[in-house]
Amino acid sequence: MLRRDPTRIELRADDLVDFERSREEYLESKAKLKDQHRKFRSATTGPPPTPAGRDLRSTTASGSGTSSGVNNSREPRPDPFEIAQQERKGKSTAERVLARATFSTYSPTCLAAVHDGKVAYTADKFPHLKRDHSFKKLSEKDISYFKSILASSSITQDEEDLEIFNSDWLRKYRGQSKLVLKPSSTEQVSKILKYCNENRLAVVPQGGNTGLVGKVEKYDKEMQKQMLHATHNAIYFITGGSVPVFDEIVVSMSSMNSIRNFDPVSGALVCDAGCILEVLDKYLEERGYIMPLDLGAKGSCHIGGNVSTNAGGLRLLRYGSLHGTVLGLEVVLPDGTILDNLSTLRKDNTGYDLKQLFIGAEGTLGIVTGVSILSPKRSKAINVALLGLNSFDQIQATFKRSKDELSEILSAFEFWDQEAIKLVKEHLVAGAKDPLQSTYPFYVLVETSGSNKDHDDYKLNNFLEGLMSDDIVQDGVVAQDTTQIHNLWAIREGIPEACSKAGAVYKYDISMPVPVLYKAVEDMKERLVSKEVIGDGKLFTSVIGYGHVGDGNLHLNVAANEFSQEATNLIEPFVFEWAAKHAGSISAEHGLGVSRNNHLHYSKSPTMIQLMIKFKQLIDPNGIMNPYKYLPDV
Amino acid sequence: MLRRDPTRIELRADDLVDFERSREEYLESKAKLKDQHRKFRSATTGPPPTPAGRDLRSTTASGSGTSSGVNNSREPRPDPFEIAQQERKGKSTAERVLARATFSTYSPTCLAAVHDGKVAYTADKFPHLKRDHSFKKLSEKDISYFKSILASSSITQDEEDLEIFNSDWLRKYRGQSKLVLKPSSTEQVSKILKYCNENRLAVVPQGGNTGLVGKVEKYDKEMQKQMLHATHNAIYFITGGSVPVFDEIVVSMSSMNSIRNFDPVSGALVCDAGCILEVLDKYLEERGYIMPLDLGAKGSCHIGGNVSTNAGGLRLLRYGSLHGTVLGLEVVLPDGTILDNLSTLRKDNTGYDLKQLFIGAEGTLGIVTGVSILSPKRSKAINVALLGLNSFDQIQATFKRSKDELSEILSAFEFWDQEAIKLVKEHLVAGAKDPLQSTYPFYVLVETSGSNKDHDDYKLNNFLEGLMSDDIVQDGVVAQDTTQIHNLWAIREGIPEACSKAGAVYKYDISMPVPVLYKAVEDMKERLVSKEVIGDGKLFTSVIGYGHVGDGNLHLNVAANEFSQEATNLIEPFVFEWAAKHAGSISAEHGLGVSRNNHLHYSKSPTMIQLMIKFKQLIDPNGIMNPYKYLPDV
Repeated sequence: MLRRDPTRIELRADDLVDFERSREEYLESKAKLKDQHRKFRSATTGPPPTPAGRDLRSTTASGSGTSSGVNNSREPRPDPFEIAQQERKGKSTAERVLARATFSTYSPTCLAAVHDGKVAYTADKFPHLKRDHSFKKLSEKDISYFKSILASSSITQDEEDLEIFNSDWLRKYRGQSKLVLKPSSTEQVSKILKYCNENRLAVVPQGGNTGLVGKVEKYDKEMQKQMLHATHNAIYFITGGSVPVFDEIVVSMSSMNSIRNFDPVSGALVCDAGCILEVLDKYLEERGYIMPLDLGAKGSCHIGGNVSTNAGGLRLLRYGSLHGTVLGLEVVLPDGTILDNLSTLRKDNTGYDLKQLFIGAEGTLGIVTGVSILSPKRSKAINVALLGLNSFDQIQATFKRSKDELSEILSAFEFWDQEAIKLVKEHLVAGAKDPLQSTYPFYVLVETSGSNKDHDDYKLNNFLEGLMSDDIVQDGVVAQDTTQIHNLWAIREGIPEACSKAGAVYKYDISMPVPVLYKAVEDMKERLVSKEVIGDGKLFTSVIGYGHVGDGNLHLNVAANEFSQEATNLIEPFVFEWAAKHAGSISAEHGLGVSRNNHLHYSKSPTMIQLMIKFKQLIDPNGIMNPYKYLPDV
Repeated sequence: MLRRDPTRIELRADDLVDFERSREEYLESKAKLKDQHRKFRSATTGPPPTPAGRDLRSTTASGSGTSSGVNNSREPRPDPFEIAQQERKGKSTAERVLARATFSTYSPTCLAAVHDGKVAYTADKFPHLKRDHSFKKLSEKDISYFKSILASSSITQDEEDLEIFNSDWLRKYRGQSKLVLKPSSTEQVSKILKYCNENRLAVVPQGGNTGLVGKVEKYDKEMQKQMLHATHNAIYFITGGSVPVFDEIVVSMSSMNSIRNFDPVSGALVCDAGCILEVLDKYLEERGYIMPLDLGAKGSCHIGGNVSTNAGGLRLLRYGSLHGTVLGLEVVLPDGTILDNLSTLRKDNTGYDLKQLFIGAEGTLGIVTGVSILSPKRSKAINVALLGLNSFDQIQATFKRSKDELSEILSAFEFWDQEAIKLVKEHLVAGAKDPLQSTYPFYVLVETSGSNKDHDDYKLNNFLEGLMSDDIVQDGVVAQDTTQIHNLWAIREGIPEACSKAGAVYKYDISMPVPVLYKAVEDMKERLVSKEVIGDGKLFTSVIGYGHVGDGNLHLNVAANEFSQEATNLIEPFVFEWAAKHAGSISAEHGLGVSRNNHLHYSKSPTMIQLMIKFKQLIDPNGIMNPYKYLPDV
């Protein structure tokens, strides 16, 4: 694994160029970047002078920074962007595919543990869960029926293969399903659910893995298994929503992966639910459009899973939630009824907006089989800046200014803390790419997306210069090409993976008003310190905070040496009570699944929960859809 | 009424300044505008030359335009902006308030007809509607109960006063309610509905008129009545959704008009449902934010009504629909249960998103009493351009380019046709403000909103110069100050009022893919021409098309000499069948009410309608909420 080179002190913006450019482009861009860089860095030398007279790098958190030399006077330094790229080039295709699959989700070492047979059944870990005896057990007759409507390749009963669909990458959940069905049409989904409903067979809809499965067919079975495992459940990964608990039939949507239609005037895209998010985004990229959502798991998660979990992700700040961007859905109800609402209209006020109920329903009301979504025009210019700051107050000040000054071009505003960057540097290639000179208590990644690079550069420069002048940020860099943009993002996107390598990680995904966002981390730390359970050789090793400032969404991670009831009791229900006390949500974007359903009352009133139960009973009276999850146990 | 001065030929952008500015500002802006104007107008004189070598005004539809003189060489001309402003100044306060109230909604002459007693009862006009005898008739005991929970000023039984709540401004609907209640708290709404539900009293929720009522208390009763009338039902105005049919109790939300909370970091606004949209927008303006929706009726419509009808309006293109921007709702269910979901969180994935069902439910599932909505930052720079074009194909080309070139600053893209501008010029003050030299078959209003005026000007200039060079637009002007922006918008916003003065107007609000948007108008015209029923002395006088190109939303107006069954039969169900055939919606943003409910099947499948009915039965088993509307008659 690539480790950060401790002798490397500074990475300069004008060192970093796109190596794939031609020499002419390179020289031209170098001259331009130097000029731009001078502007960023040397606010003291040209009008208008900034009050503090500092530049974007010359001050560190400790105030000891001194780097102010002109670029040409410095000696060549190893470029971590180049190192990473060359390292990437040295990898075999298989390694690269695997690296892609594991990107920001899990590590191969973690996988091994999943498959060593030690993962406990969910039913054993949650002893309050009892199999619902109104559900029929699978019989040969049932299998015969499914064989009559599906190709044999769409039916999986092999125990080893089933393991992949029965467990999640975080080693927390493991079900006991004996059957996986992979329908390839809406009609097949309809027939499956109709039969299951009539015969009281419970069903778990599951996001699929087709895209990568296709690619890894040539590898051995173990590799394929790892790949499959890496890529399923990308969305439900924390709450166990897509993993069976008992013997539910898994309906995998991986075989429904066609794009049905795209309108280049309106940007309306209609596709099967099993399409992989990144595949859709690439398809749109070629047509000048962009998917309105983006997640670290984009290379594996399905658009149907995104819709079913109301995935938020990295572009929500700019393009809003799926409740606004989804134009229509095709859903198969538990009784097999096909609800055809694949509208491509931006406006349609004819009756209750039924599709909204299925967005974020985690497959408890039916299976989403088709999605119509409005894609925005893809921005021609993207800028990414990484900033080092001393306090969360400074992050808030930076956020407020970004809304004022970057305004319509602001497309992401992410933050992480010192613990997070420490783990990334320890565990990931991305850690070697931290271009900041020193370590700071907080980091912010700001992204702008616009239609005119010069305008965006000007706005971003002004914004950053103002922040430096007013001593709000301590250091910062601006990516100068696509590779650097990817590398800065890799730090942010690598945090979940880095956390997962820090031991047994308790993950919480809470939202609250921005001013108290980081207080959740501080309060948790204070609690564990006061109980003397955190530190070397103790129960917990660290508390990590990162997330989407723009959405008031904190990913709170508490790393322990191992999962235990004692550890759980120290952080739960404290964290849920904390969220409730601060008018927050106990699940901002990760949903409820099997792990949060009984905590719903922290975020929703009894009246609200009662109405939810009524809707569930109305649409799924036999309760066959994704049982034991989402709504509180009765 | 101010008529267009036929001797006035040309209005130049640099004539138009804000008269309220100081002399210094005036001179400064004049110099700047002149420079800017030169840039727009004289593409031939400076680099880079445009291929066609034309300027934004020198070519008319007929090619006869010749205006190319320098500003200083021209004689002073009467400035219609100034005329309008002076005319405004000459008006009494009462007249101005009335003018405000009538802005883009109705005319006083139209009002007179409403009050001459000729408006037929809805129940007589739609004889298929029968009073539901399961509903109890109002008794003295009921009145006593309402008097026990409400202040006497919150109860209206006076027949003359009731007339205002019983009818709509379009002279189409008239109910027979005997009681109007104006609760001032959520608890009062809860008590009212609980009582009505237990006693089978039918209820119609109604958008209110508090803001203007307050202002006109000093005027005489007739005036007050007109004011009230002018300002209620602003949203439901076409479908009759907020007007009673029989003796339903009207629950007016006009007394619930407080802003509850505003978070200046996130932009989350929480307020009572009875707040007037424009009042909220002004409140936010002072804090640097903007309401994410805007309608011609903003001065009178309520945010609760907007939510209940899922109002679209003029900013949808930029900020998306209410399904995305509404963060939470407080709703009183028919049985009096208060559903408290006034979340201010941008992300909250805890359970079914229940609030979504009430957005666009037209009060059939309960009464929205509180709204939490995400307001975006208000743009510092606004530009508005008015363009004249020869064909709808040119409009489409212009729209596509605007998405590419204006991209993130594009905030509105509206169009209208020659018939529309003809009516505005004939009937409205706004018509005198058309600054284009000639008449064109089509008009487009493009608005940009951004954070940097210079950048936005640059983008807009490039966009417009490109359109002129490529012969896509024939003429155009760009507003140079706030007054001009308002005046250009007044043309667009005046179209509904102008149409209403063209006789009895059949109004349709349909959405469809952009390429066939104007075909609906052409096909309707062709149909009426082929049947020889349009023209001087015939049944119909004109077919008018205008709307929101960006949303694929056409407002199709067919003007007749009078409403008649014969006229209706000539355009219905043709227009609904047309929308269904083109995968469109029969109601893009105006809802269903009492006039479109039985046409729902043109846009939704039987399965969808069946599920809607189930939801209605689940939440409102006694059917007391806004009966006879929204869902098809059983």
